Order: sequence, then structure tokens, then C-alpha cells
Amino acid sequence: MMIWTNMAIPNGLFRTLTFEVATAGVNWTNLNEEIKESGLFLPLDPSPKALIGGVVATNCSGTNALRYGTMKDYVVNLTVVLADGSIIKTRHRPRKTSAGYNLNSLFTGSEGTLGIVTEATLKLAIIPDSFSVATATFPTIRAAADAATKMIRSGVPLAALELMDDAQMGVVNKNGGAGGRMWQEKTTLFLKFSGTKSSVEDNVRLARHVAKAFRCNTFEAATDQKEMDSLWAARKQALWASLAIRPEGTQIWSTDAAVPISRMAELIQACKERAEKLGLVTSVLGHVGDGNFHQMVMYDPRSPEQVQATKKCVEIMMEKAIEMEGTVSGEHGTGLGKKHCLLKELGPETIGLMRAMKNTLDPMWLLNPGKVFDE
Amino acid sequence: MMIWTNMAIPNGLFRTLTFEVATAGVNWTNLNEEIKESGLFLPLDPSPKALIGGVVATNCSGTNALRYGTMKDYVVNLTVVLADGSIIKTRHRPRKTSAGYNLNSLFTGSEGTLGIVTEATLKLAIIPDSFSVATATFPTIRAAADAATKMIRSGVPLAALELMDDAQMGVVNKNGGAGGRMWQEKTTLFLKFSGTKSSVEDNVRLARHVAKAFRCNTFEAATDQKEMDSLWAARKQALWASLAIRPEGTQIWSTDAAVPISRMAELIQACKERAEKLGLVTSVLGHVGDGNFHQMVMYDPRSPEQVQATKKCVEIMMEKAIEMEGTVSGEHGTGLGKKHCLLKELGPETIGLMRAMKNTLDPMWLLNPGKVFDE
Repeated sequence: MMIWTNMAIPNGLFRTLTFEVATAGVNWTNLNEEIKESGLFLPLDPSPKALIGGVVATNCSGTNALRYGTMKDYVVNLTVVLADGSIIKTRHRPRKTSAGYNLNSLFTGSEGTLGIVTEATLKLAIIPDSFSVATATFPTIRAAADAATKMIRSGVPLAALELMDDAQMGVVNKNGGAGGRMWQEKTTLFLKFSGTKSSVEDNVRLARHVAKAFRCNTFEAATDQKEMDSLWAARKQALWASLAIRPEGTQIWSTDAAVPISRMAELIQACKERAEKLGLVTSVLGHVGDGNFHQMVMYDPRSPEQVQATKKCVEIMMEKAIEMEGTVSGEHGTGLGKKHCLLKELGPETIGLMRAMKNTLDPMWLLNPGKVFDE
Repeated sequence: MMIWTNMAIPNGLFRTLTFEVATAGVNWTNLNEEIKESGLFLPLDPSPKALIGGVVATNCSGTNALRYGTMKDYVVNLTVVLADGSIIKTRHRPRKTSAGYNLNSLFTGSEGTLGIVTEATLKLAIIPDSFSVATATFPTIRAAADAATKMIRSGVPLAALELMDDAQMGVVNKNGGAGGRMWQEKTTLFLKFSGTKSSVEDNVRLARHVAKAFRCNTFEAATDQKEMDSLWAARKQALWASLAIRPEGTQIWSTDAAVPISRMAELIQACKERAEKLGLVTSVLGHVGDGNFHQMVMYDPRSPEQVQATKKCVEIMMEKAIEMEGTVSGEHGTGLGKKHCLLKELGPETIGLMRAMKNTLDPMWLLNPGKVFDE
């Protein structure tokens, strides 16, 4: 792995620095480990196994997107192999540019359908001085979602704002708890704060104030690293807990949607009600600060009724997200499974434009064919 | 003008809110006036005459780009008329999305060559609590540029960081001064700070410390609105002063480039020396916090020698910017005048890809034909 650092530039809250990643196969956690002495990091938080090439191809994000944005915000230039075998570089290394079309944003998130990213020059963010983590439990999912919306609207500066519903907290407990403890099986908000020591303290106070106004049952905050890890553990292990405790032979269908934050509580509520009516075991887990959440549905692939009900449940979530002027994917991408939803979301003209671009860049549909939309 | 506000969402330092602009013909200063009661604003700072459609088409920026980024960072969705007369909408209104190709960033900055933007849904930033403005004069342009680089590298949180050289300060004085005063004819940094009252005070102190370390002659700061306006006036009126004082019949050739900030001082210095050798009257004015600066060359269009020397001067600036891994346009775009420079910057393969996209979206080259690259 070749990394080459040469400049630090500020960008909003965080200082950024460009560096060059020699190959797309660099793991982002290894990268952050390697550069930590510089005081800088790539602030996305996707799966620990993700590689830079994949992070670019999917416009990755995660729990830090609320504060730091998604991968598109960190790409300075890309080296891309096109379908005809030619190799292009999208740009040099200026911090700001208005020269030509924005090819960085075209390739970032194109799911490998337009070219193969082999190299990236990236911005980095400065590692904040101080952190805090807090959790708050609520009597209802509505109260938790409304509290989350209020924190966002009133401008409490948060680094992350995640929600897990009572069912998901139950899953964590069934798996033996997390962070060395068992958890209340109530809808829980997980909050992260970062900045200077005094600003972190101020912001925890503001968040506690909002949580109380929405009748939170508990509000716990920690600044000690061990306690922070313990408080964040339930969130961190949520997906693995779901996979670990499912009865043998069952599968988890994990999907996501994103809507304007004003509609988020309503969407989560509606999805949970419909899932219950369909007799499904589901849980909700979300980057609610971005109006983006995941629904995890457990189903037995050997039962045609359960498969049918699960598909129906996901379809309803997608339709409602579209009705609410949202998107059928906040961060999971389109792939094969959501092609028909994307068509509904954007309409045939907009998809037609994307397809025309695909035809131009890859006329023989060699690159990840059949993803995002049909030929 | 129809504006529809519905949600506030945080994004790094600034809270943002989406709203809908009914037409691309809305002036951005009128827009900010109309929405100021909401405590939010569109934080770009281009020409006061710019309209939203043009701001999107050129990926506009200005003195606030250091803190707030450029127009691409504020587009949630666009309505676009394509060359075949069809009308598309790029997205709905999710805060975060990974569904389909990023058409927002494709049209933003495409200089009207791919479609006509008729509507935009935009993010807004929260108006900061407190501001300060400072100016610092330096014995040499190198000292000023180095001080600017140091401020950026050491992470002093600045809202704007602008430079005017001794020649440009002389131009302001020749035009009768600015802000009710005459100015020292020395290279001057213009700094803006914003945030909470205490953070602004801290940051002014940090900036003063760096300026002194680079032997600034003077450092003046103001927080009173009238004094701030007075300090900022020379920067604000720089372009108009240049236009006003030029001898009858002469023209100003204003151009820009952007490089990694580590190379900026070197580039400015080299450009000034070459301009002097060519016998030209030039001045420098820059968004130096972004590694982006403007050179203004005065020339008499009736003198073939002066026209030739001016062209040569601009070419040298472009060549040096490319050598330094920068771009031939940080914010002015490509248009007609920089097509050949863009080709040099990006190479025929990358330009070929852009041209292929143009051919796909506008096969008859109806939209702003001949701009950005040749047919």
C-alpha cells in the first residue's frame, strides 16, 4: 500500500488532507491504522471488511455519514479502467475545480457498471480531540424517532444518531447482550458526539434535554473509552446478533430506505405495523439522523408464504418511501434486487438517461451487467 | 418565486434545510433575503447578479467556498430539460441516497452543455451566531501566501481566506479607496471567521499568531458590523476597482487556476515574475484557502503585442498549474477560452469520455455547442 500525504486543508468542521491509495484493494480500517499518526482519518464507517475500490463503487457511508457525508465527498480523483480497456484519470489534485464534467461523482456509486476503479486520491478528516457516546431509551418508537428528528431540527451537533427498536434490542439480549451487559428491550437511540472537550459536554447536555422532552426512560452518557465502547457495543453488534440468533434455516432480509427527515417517524411506524399484519418477525435499525433506516426481516426460505410475505413487506417499505419523496436506497445501492423500485422512484425518462450513459461507456454491457437497471 | 421549506438537517458545521426553487431564474441574493427569517442561507458567494440556474450550471462558488464548499454540495435534486425536449427530475428529496447514478453532480458544472436546469431543490446552511473580519498586510507576496498555507495546514477554522497583492491594493486606492479609507499598498490577507462568539475570538487569536510568525506588518480585526464591512470593502470592490480605473480602451483579462495548497505560493510567485518579464500590468486576487487564485491582466486590445503577451501570460499560468497537479479552472469554468488547456490537463482519453457523454445526451450539439471541448 502506497500512501502519499502532502497537504492539509480545512473543510467545514474537519481538516482534510489528500493522499494517494496505490490500489483499490486497500482495506479502509488498515488504511486508518496506517495513517493514524498523522492525526487524520477516512471518516466513513462501512463494514470493517470494505476495500477502497468497493467503497468508491458503492458510495459507501455508515454511522458517521450524519457528520461527515458519504464517499463522494472524499474523492479528489480516480484512476478508472473503462470497458474498452483504456485507462483514465478523472482529475489531478486540486482542492477545488470547475474544469469539465464531474467524473468523480459519476463513477462514485455507479456500482461498477461504468468502469473499474483501480486508484483513488482521497480527502481525509482530522481526528477530533474528544468524543462522547450516549444512549437513551424511549417508551415508543414514535417518541424515539420524534426525539431524533427534534435533535436534528434544533441543530444539536451530533457525530452519529442511530436507532434500534425494542425488537432489535431483544435480539442483542438473546445473543447474550453486548458490551458486557444486558439491555433494556426498549427503542433506543445511540448518539455520538465529537469535537473539543467543552463543545462535546455542551452537546451532550443539549441532547439530554431533547430526549427528556420526549419522555425518555433513561439517558446514559460516557466519555471514558471503555464505557463508550460498552455503550456503543449493542449498536455495533446488532447485525451480527441478528444473524447469530436466527433459527437454523432462516434468513435475514436487510433492506434500507431514506426519506426527508420530517417523514421518517411516520415511515418507520407504518413499516412496523405492516410487518406485524403480515405476521413477520422484523426489527428496525437506522441511521435516523440521515432519515435513513434499515428493516431486517427474518424468514424461512423453505416457506413460500414467508418468502411472499417478506417480499410484500419490503415492497410496501419501498412504495411508502417513494410516496414520501424519499429513495429506495439510502446506502445499500440498487444491485439486482431494487431495479424495479428504482424505476418506480425515478421514472423511465431518468432511468433512460442512466441507461444511455451505460450504453455509451460500456456498449457491450461487460461491466457488472444487469445491475442498477435492465439492458 | 416559490420556496417551500420543510426540514432542517445538520451537515458538519452547518445545519442545512431543503427547499424548492420554482424557477432557475431566481437571483441568489434575493433568495437569501427572502428566507433570512428562517435563520438559514445559501452560503455561496458568487456575483450578486447570479441566478440559481447559472449557479448550478457553473458549479458556482466564491469567497465562502473554503468553509461551505461549492454548489455541487447544495443540490438535492434538479429538474432538467434535455436536448430531445424531454424533462427529467434527477431525484426526489432524500438527504442521503445511493440509488442510481449521481445525475445531480453530472449536470452541476456542465456549463449548460448537457441540459437546461429549470428547477432545483437545495440544501441551506444555518446563519452563524457571530462573525469577525480581519486583514493582515505582509512585506512580500511569498510571506502572505506562506502564512495563508500555514493557517490552513494548522487547521485554523476560517470562513474565508482571500489574498490581494500590492498591485491590487494600489488599484483600490487609485479608485479612491474602499470602506471609507485608503489602504496600505502591500500584499494583504482578508480573513473571515464565523461560529459562536467564543470560538470566533479563539480563531482570530490563532490567525493573528500565525500572521505574526510570518512577519505581518499589521493585523486588524473587527466584530462590529460597520467595521467588518469597512475591512472587507477592499476585497469586495477589487474587481470593480480594476474595471473602473483602467485607461480608456484597455481591457482586463481575468483568469483563474487552482493547485494543491502546498504549491500555491510558488505558482503565484512564478506567475507574477513572468508577467513582469512580459511587461504587463497584472494583479493577483485569490481564494487562497482553496489553493485557487485569479490573475488580472490589463491589456490594450488594439495592440497586437499586448494581446500576444497577455495570451502568453495566461498560457504560462495554465501550464504551471497543470505541472503542479492542479487545474486550469478552480471556479471560472472552461467555456471557449480554456478548451485547449482542459485538454492538456486531463488528456484526450478523459476528454473523449466527456465528449462521448455529450454526444449521448445531445447528439446534435444543440446545447451551448462548442463549450468545454470541441465536437
